[in-house]
Amino acid sequence: MTTATPDWNVMLATCPSRTSLARIANKWTAMIVITLSDGPARFGAIRESVGGISGKVLATTLRDLERDGLLTRTAYDEMPPRVEYELTPLGRTLREPLTALGTWAEQHIEQVLDARDAFDLKTD
Amino acid sequence: MTTATPDWNVMLATCPSRTSLARIANKWTAMIVITLSDGPARFGAIRESVGGISGKVLATTLRDLERDGLLTRTAYDEMPPRVEYELTPLGRTLREPLTALGTWAEQHIEQVLDARDAFDLKTD
Repeated sequence: MTTATPDWNVMLATCPSRTSLARIANKWTAMIVITLSDGPARFGAIRESVGGISGKVLATTLRDLERDGLLTRTAYDEMPPRVEYELTPLGRTLREPLTALGTWAEQHIEQVLDARDAFDLKTD
Repeated sequence: MTTATPDWNVMLATCPSRTSLARIANKWTAMIVITLSDGPARFGAIRESVGGISGKVLATTLRDLERDGLLTRTAYDEMPPRVEYELTPLGRTLREPLTALGTWAEQHIEQVLDARDAFDLKTD
């Protein structure tokens, strides 16, 4: 008996690939991946780069991304201790699509703001 | 006096472009845009395509996407009434990066699952 190769499908609520989509289609993930695109960084530097993220959300998101194999956490045995986060080869494959989303938001925000104004006028 | 062009920057918590990033870097947005990539669709058909989405979340997300100018909602004066959602030209520019995320999740889920297993063994 052979096992069929599963057909992964993010559109199915119970498909494991959905959990991966939820992780990567996320604003914090996008900003962390954009930050780490420039190379490894420490917790404090990532927090400084990703404006408005709380320490708790950053710690949780970094751990989730580490668990999914998208980044590594390396603790250097120094005084004071140094911990660095770095994209894995798998995580680096997300740089392009996630950077594209950040760039899209910056390039189209004026159109989006105009659309919001028009919508709000129409529905007031 | 001339007004400087604002430098939009998604990494700043208070930049308007951050609200746009939050909207597009979202799993429901990704799946709705993927669904509407094939053409206009009715509420029920979108709900059937996007497995696991509640009617309330779908209605809210469609309205948010309409407000941001990414899709249109057209009510046809028929009996029974027909309402269709369709990507705008602006929304269509998101097909590529958001489809890329869905494809990424399906193509890499086995690596992600392996990474999760290794992580959980290490941290148990």
